[in-house]
Amino acid sequence: MNKKKNIVVIGGGTGTFAVLSGLKKYKDLKLQAIITVSDDGGSNKKFRDEFGLLPPSDFRQCLVALSSDEPKHDTLRKLMMYRFSKGVGLEGQTFGNILIAALTDIEGSQLQAFEEAGRILNIKGEIIPITTENVRLMAEYENGEVVFGEHVIDEPEAFHDYRQKIKRLFLNRKVKVYKKAKQAINAADFIILGPGDLYTSILANIIVGNAAELIKNSKAKIIYNINLMTKLGQTFGFTAKDHVEEIKKYIGRYPCYVTININNLPKAALARYKEKKEKPIEDDLDGKNYKVIRGNFVAKEMITKSKGDVLERSLIRHDSNKLAKTLYKIFKEGE
Amino acid sequence: MNKKKNIVVIGGGTGTFAVLSGLKKYKDLKLQAIITVSDDGGSNKKFRDEFGLLPPSDFRQCLVALSSDEPKHDTLRKLMMYRFSKGVGLEGQTFGNILIAALTDIEGSQLQAFEEAGRILNIKGEIIPITTENVRLMAEYENGEVVFGEHVIDEPEAFHDYRQKIKRLFLNRKVKVYKKAKQAINAADFIILGPGDLYTSILANIIVGNAAELIKNSKAKIIYNINLMTKLGQTFGFTAKDHVEEIKKYIGRYPCYVTININNLPKAALARYKEKKEKPIEDDLDGKNYKVIRGNFVAKEMITKSKGDVLERSLIRHDSNKLAKTLYKIFKEGE
Repeated sequence: MNKKKNIVVIGGGTGTFAVLSGLKKYKDLKLQAIITVSDDGGSNKKFRDEFGLLPPSDFRQCLVALSSDEPKHDTLRKLMMYRFSKGVGLEGQTFGNILIAALTDIEGSQLQAFEEAGRILNIKGEIIPITTENVRLMAEYENGEVVFGEHVIDEPEAFHDYRQKIKRLFLNRKVKVYKKAKQAINAADFIILGPGDLYTSILANIIVGNAAELIKNSKAKIIYNINLMTKLGQTFGFTAKDHVEEIKKYIGRYPCYVTININNLPKAALARYKEKKEKPIEDDLDGKNYKVIRGNFVAKEMITKSKGDVLERSLIRHDSNKLAKTLYKIFKEGE
Repeated sequence: MNKKKNIVVIGGGTGTFAVLSGLKKYKDLKLQAIITVSDDGGSNKKFRDEFGLLPPSDFRQCLVALSSDEPKHDTLRKLMMYRFSKGVGLEGQTFGNILIAALTDIEGSQLQAFEEAGRILNIKGEIIPITTENVRLMAEYENGEVVFGEHVIDEPEAFHDYRQKIKRLFLNRKVKVYKKAKQAINAADFIILGPGDLYTSILANIIVGNAAELIKNSKAKIIYNINLMTKLGQTFGFTAKDHVEEIKKYIGRYPCYVTININNLPKAALARYKEKKEKPIEDDLDGKNYKVIRGNFVAKEMITKSKGDVLERSLIRHDSNKLAKTLYKIFKEGE
C-alpha cells in the first residue's frame, strides 16, 4: 500500500473550489488548501473592520468544496453559501461568515474556528491561511499607478485603467507565512496552482513572506492549471504563455506541468464575457520549459446565479471531475 | 418488548428545556414537545417583523435540549445558543435564530426549517408549534386592564400593576391547533405541563384553538410540575394550589399527578429573587383531586450568566435528571 500523496492546492477562489471538489473523491490523496487572506471586498470588509478577523470568504468556499458528500451534510453546505436577501442587519450577509464570527468567539481564535467548522462539515482535507496576519494587497501598474486593496484590482473599471498590466504585486506590510502553510509546502509531493485569478488568488499567496522561496525550493512538482478566460484588471490580453511567465517571475521556477483547455467554450457565455472585455485565453504554449497537457476541461453547465456568493462570477468554468482526473493521472505518472 | 411510550411535553421555556434534557436519555420514550408561538420579546420581535416568521426562541431551546449528546454536536449546541456581542447588524442577535431564518428561506417553509434543524442536531424527539399561524398573547387583569403581547406580561413592572392577577388569558385572533400538535395530543400516553411560566409558556398553548378540549378528552395522564418560584406579573403571591386550580380552570380537568419540590432553595439566589418580589411557592397541596409527588428537584448549580439567551433568567431551576427520574417512575407505574 502506498503512502498518501501530499497535494497542496494554493489559491482561494472559485478555481480552487473546482480543484478541491474534484480531488476530494480520491481517497489516496492528502489534500491541503492554502488560501489568501487579502480579500477585502463585499462581506469580507465587514469581518475585517468590525470583528478584526481574517476575511472568511475563501475559507468558506474551500470548506464547502471539501465537505463530506453524505446527504446529511447537504443542508450545512447550502447554509454555508446562503446569503440573506432581507432582514435589517442581515441583508447581504453570508451565513457562513456569520458562522465563522460566532465560532471564533466561542472557540477563542479564528484558527480554531476554522478547524471546528471543518469538523462540523466533516471535510476531506485541511484549509490553511497563508498567513494569520492582517494584510492588504497592493498593485503597481505599468503606468506607475498604485492601487490599494484586493477589491480594487478585482473591480478595475471603477478605479483604474483596465488596459494596464500589473508591474508589481505586493503587500502593505511584511508578514510571515503561517507555520502550517510552510509545513504543507515543505511536505508537498505536488503543488497545484490555478485555475483562479492570477494576481488576487494565486500570486496573492506567493508574495507572502518567503512563500515564493519555499515553493521554489520544495521537492514538489508544480502543476499550473491555466484559466479558461482572461480577467479584466488582471490578465487583460494575456496569452497562456503570459500566464506561465508571470508565475515563473514570482516563484523563480517554471511549473513542471501546465494544463490547458482546448475545447470550445459555450457561445452564449462568451458574449457575456465580451461585454466585460474578457475572452478565451489563447494557447501559445510551446512546452519548452514544462510539460503541456491539453484536454477538455470545460464544465457543461454554466453557472447562472446562486443565492450564496460562491461561484457567482464564473459563468464558464472548469469541470471539477475532468480536471481532477487529469491531475490524478499526473500524480500517478511518477510511480 | 414494550412499545415506546408517547410523552408530550407542552410549554416552551426553560422549564421545558429541563424536562426534555432529562427525558431524552430514556430510550423507550417517544418525545414530542409542543411549544408556544406567541413570544414577541427581544430577538423574536425581529423575526416576526422582518421575516414574517414564527418566533424561534422556544424552538431553539427545545432543539438544544433534545440535541444528541455526542461530542460532535457540542459545537452546534453552543452555536445555537450563541448571541453576538458585536458587529453592526449582528449585535444582540442569536445565532440559532439567524440559522432558522436562513433555513426557512432555503427549505421554503419554517416548518421544514424546523425539521431540518432537528436533523442537523440529530435531536431525540420532535418539536411541534401549537399553531403555525401568527398570533399574539393578550391578558385581562382583575382591575380590568388589558395588555397586548407576551413580553408585556413577562415584563410587568414597565407596563402594568404586577400585583394584579390575570383574570383571562386570550389570543388576538382565532387560530387553529396545528395538525401535528393535535395528533401528538391524541396519541399521548402522558402529557407533561411545567415547570414553566404558567401563563406565557403553559396556558399560552392551552388557549390555542381547541387545544384545551383536546387535552381534556385525551386518554393521556396529565403530569403538572409546579415551579420552584413565583413569577412577577404572572403568579405573584400564588400558592401551589393556585397554580393547579388555574390549570384546571383552562383545561377543565385536574392533572393526574402534581410534582412539587420540598427541598430548600439556595439562599443567595433567593435574595436576588426577593428584589423582584418573587419567592418560593408554598406547598399547600392536599392531594384530593390528584396525586401529589414531593421530592428534591432543585439543581445544585445556579445558572449565572450565559452568552446565549438560554436559561439566562432562571437562577434557581429544576435539575433535569432528578425530575426526569421521577417522571419516568410515573410512566412506569401503570404497567
